[in-house]
Amino acid sequence: MSSERLIYLPLGGAGEIGMNAYVYGYGPQGQERLVLVDLGVTFPDMDTTPGVDLIMPDMTWLKDRADRLEGIFITHGHEDHIGAIAHMYAHLNVPVYARAFTANLARRKMEEAGHDPANVHTVQAWPEVTKLGPFTIGVAPMSHSIPESGGLVIDSPAGRVVHTGDFKLDPNPLVGEPFDPEMWSEIAKDGVQALVCDSTNVFSQHPGRSEAELPEEITKLFSEAKGLVAATTFASNVARVKTLAEAGVKAGRSVVLLGRAMRRMIEAAVETGVLVDFPKTISPEDAGNVPRDNLMLITTGSQGERRAATAQLARGKYRGLELKEGDLFLFSSKTIPGNEKGVIRIINQFSEMGVDVVDDSSGLYHVSGHANRPDLEEIHRLLKPKMLIPMHGEHRHLRQHARLGEEKGIASAVVVNGMMMDLTGDAPKVTEWIETGRTYLDGTVKYGAMDGIVRDRIRMALNGHVVVTVILDEEDEPLGEPWCDVKGLPETGSSKAALVDVMEEDLNQFLMRAGAKTLRDDDKLEQELRRIARQSAFSEIGKKPEVTVVVSRMR
Amino acid sequence: MSSERLIYLPLGGAGEIGMNAYVYGYGPQGQERLVLVDLGVTFPDMDTTPGVDLIMPDMTWLKDRADRLEGIFITHGHEDHIGAIAHMYAHLNVPVYARAFTANLARRKMEEAGHDPANVHTVQAWPEVTKLGPFTIGVAPMSHSIPESGGLVIDSPAGRVVHTGDFKLDPNPLVGEPFDPEMWSEIAKDGVQALVCDSTNVFSQHPGRSEAELPEEITKLFSEAKGLVAATTFASNVARVKTLAEAGVKAGRSVVLLGRAMRRMIEAAVETGVLVDFPKTISPEDAGNVPRDNLMLITTGSQGERRAATAQLARGKYRGLELKEGDLFLFSSKTIPGNEKGVIRIINQFSEMGVDVVDDSSGLYHVSGHANRPDLEEIHRLLKPKMLIPMHGEHRHLRQHARLGEEKGIASAVVVNGMMMDLTGDAPKVTEWIETGRTYLDGTVKYGAMDGIVRDRIRMALNGHVVVTVILDEEDEPLGEPWCDVKGLPETGSSKAALVDVMEEDLNQFLMRAGAKTLRDDDKLEQELRRIARQSAFSEIGKKPEVTVVVSRMR
Repeated sequence: MSSERLIYLPLGGAGEIGMNAYVYGYGPQGQERLVLVDLGVTFPDMDTTPGVDLIMPDMTWLKDRADRLEGIFITHGHEDHIGAIAHMYAHLNVPVYARAFTANLARRKMEEAGHDPANVHTVQAWPEVTKLGPFTIGVAPMSHSIPESGGLVIDSPAGRVVHTGDFKLDPNPLVGEPFDPEMWSEIAKDGVQALVCDSTNVFSQHPGRSEAELPEEITKLFSEAKGLVAATTFASNVARVKTLAEAGVKAGRSVVLLGRAMRRMIEAAVETGVLVDFPKTISPEDAGNVPRDNLMLITTGSQGERRAATAQLARGKYRGLELKEGDLFLFSSKTIPGNEKGVIRIINQFSEMGVDVVDDSSGLYHVSGHANRPDLEEIHRLLKPKMLIPMHGEHRHLRQHARLGEEKGIASAVVVNGMMMDLTGDAPKVTEWIETGRTYLDGTVKYGAMDGIVRDRIRMALNGHVVVTVILDEEDEPLGEPWCDVKGLPETGSSKAALVDVMEEDLNQFLMRAGAKTLRDDDKLEQELRRIARQSAFSEIGKKPEVTVVVSRMR
Repeated sequence: MSSERLIYLPLGGAGEIGMNAYVYGYGPQGQERLVLVDLGVTFPDMDTTPGVDLIMPDMTWLKDRADRLEGIFITHGHEDHIGAIAHMYAHLNVPVYARAFTANLARRKMEEAGHDPANVHTVQAWPEVTKLGPFTIGVAPMSHSIPESGGLVIDSPAGRVVHTGDFKLDPNPLVGEPFDPEMWSEIAKDGVQALVCDSTNVFSQHPGRSEAELPEEITKLFSEAKGLVAATTFASNVARVKTLAEAGVKAGRSVVLLGRAMRRMIEAAVETGVLVDFPKTISPEDAGNVPRDNLMLITTGSQGERRAATAQLARGKYRGLELKEGDLFLFSSKTIPGNEKGVIRIINQFSEMGVDVVDDSSGLYHVSGHANRPDLEEIHRLLKPKMLIPMHGEHRHLRQHARLGEEKGIASAVVVNGMMMDLTGDAPKVTEWIETGRTYLDGTVKYGAMDGIVRDRIRMALNGHVVVTVILDEEDEPLGEPWCDVKGLPETGSSKAALVDVMEEDLNQFLMRAGAKTLRDDDKLEQELRRIARQSAFSEIGKKPEVTVVVSRMR
């Protein structure tokens, strides 16, 4: 059996924060039976992915080996872990396993995409396990910023792997199970071959803080507020939503949930029994009958998303409700890097209305869902793994985390997407480099990040666009003059004449002098017309636009 | 004389951080003689201003009143205060006044733009003053993160205004004058009618820290470093660049300045006598002969700018130099909101090389150049103004700062761009709302933010672009079939046929059925073809592209 091996291959999430997708395999080389852990998305931005709706890991490698895939485990319901499951399911088509709350969310996604939700199986928490080919897999409760996050205990003939998923060491997460050091000690007692571990907060030096530290301060804030109170957090942070709602009630306020995701998450949490005793809420319509200082809104859009409830309130009304001078708005959330400008825009819009905005800078109204550096050291101590593979982090996080492991004498490796590791021996070994990438969902189409589509969009955005149209007669002679249509370019440049007139004149000059050979050759003609249009624009406006040349021949 | 008044009108910088431009006027209503304070830029981003090179305040109001403009004062050399001076100078054409270092920078800009640098006049520090129409203006030294920042003391028959410019209360800024409370008390002793005051750090609760706190820690960091050491900061932070260089020398390293702005700033500071005893530097070429652990680079690009020295080093070589495993890179800077992703990209690239990155999160290697909340309270106490107008801040900063003033019994107002204030009485009064805006520099052309050019670019980036070409004969009958060229769109959609084929087929169907009236009418035809192309694309790929329709008629 020495030819059998245990492999680990991240297809997403290692070397980035987002679109998690980790493959484990066991068996003879090239015939390993496979399990996929998580299948998440990343969100696009204008800088690199304008017009894209969602970013997912390229699943080509796994698709080509779908016959070896035993199943998919989802650690928890955050979009970067669950978001691509329905979009990619058609290619994988194996059972999906998750705890009740996560499974509930996954089924909703499957249904929306037209897949059978019965493909999603609810598993009970550890010590219950699921047998999948050579693997036995259990989901052991972890505390995080969403209910029922699970660390996977993956057993194979090569030993036990613990894949933490996202976690923190919260003794009192308010909703869901606390972190249970005894359970994890017990899991580790016969040895952990490899710990594959969340690295998000490895640069945070202080021990992580408990969700339980927040209710008192939030209640105090709301009680002292005069007008209407509103607060935002991630809808999936069910414990926080509950804390906000309870604080509102204690402050004598009726609670309104605003935003589709907010209502859907609470619904899923109630349906699965994760959430009990959530305060009674009222509808936005009924809120109109409640005095403003007895009202509390809980809204989606903590990251400044333009279409979410928070941004809409900042621009004006949302479902008949609006904020006014003297109201309070709380961001019970941290702004993810890249979202600062959107969040700041909203804060300034509220400021213009006279609304007082409170954010997380005091540390009183938000705690992170990830393990900080001392917490990571604690989990290393508890699990005593033979090897450590940091995951869920950018390169800098993985490197820092691996360094932490090495300092404690654990064989550690920085493993990024596409590095297939053999975890069978005493230290992680690279066995192969797999080509990985990103798949974009754009409207209803999926295409690869390297297809050039987004590159062309960025170029048009940076440089503007010109259409050059030329018609040639049966003898390949120009029929009339060429003309230009521009988009995203100024109308006039240095000569004060219309930009299109200058370009058309230059193009016409060229056509009148062009030889028969050039005029007959589509590629050559197009190339020359493009060159002249760009040159002409450059001398007029100082930049070279993108050019589409349309040559029509009367043949 | 009671009909004469003192006015204040921000055209930029109030309600935003960037493109500062503040007008003061004194005289009968509508005939006030005017002075402009600062004329800066803001930097574009992909989200809102793709392809734009610089953003400047719209100067239309002032251009239309250029005959009433006496001069321009520049408080200091940061781009958001000086950056638009040469671009806008042709429209204003009045003397520019600044202290020596700032004037040196302004003259370089004037020369590059083809204006006479002699239009820039060097003024000495307070108590020297310049008479300009009804105004007497002095530049009183302020400490900031650039040498020779000045607070303006603007006297008119209606009293004294102090316009702080950017400042902090640094008793030992290392380069340039310390903050001088006695001088400012003296300036205030006969009363300050209005304090127009920097608001950038109003949310920072702790007293600001001195530049002098840094050298010891930075020297320690560099001395303990093993391989090559590199550090970045704003080139204009001459004190910091000096601290970095001196720390390098103390650590036994030869210093290399990398990046055009870095060399230019040091040159200007030496030329004007602001900087003395700057350590000897060596060229990048000579650096090749120095052992790596005796080398220190100081680089431009602390904000992640893609073309600056830091980003180039992160991608590979810059002027023959490169970083390696075990080297150290220090960000002696704060990341400005919106630049996080670019900076993080660089940190991860360095991480991949094995370079250790140190940033400002410990507080040991960077201090801010702006007054924090307690420092603002200190300046309020020192100057005892009758009224307070917060400037240099987003709306949230201005509002918070005005609140601070009100709490201390100072008549304060939140004044944003375009609000013309009468400062003559006991409290600031709005007298008029002026239309303000932004002017974009794009290549060699300037145009207004509302001209629709950038909007079209953003649409092409989000939606992709289709060119539809149709040729009609002398009878207005289609000559051949319509065709489509796409950019920034996937090649195939739901029907698996080429997207252009599907669109062309749909367009052809329409043309074959179209009546003579539609075919004769350019506008109608274009509108219909656009509609059909968008519909066709939507059913194929789930999104509606931008469309340019080119109708050619054989007349």
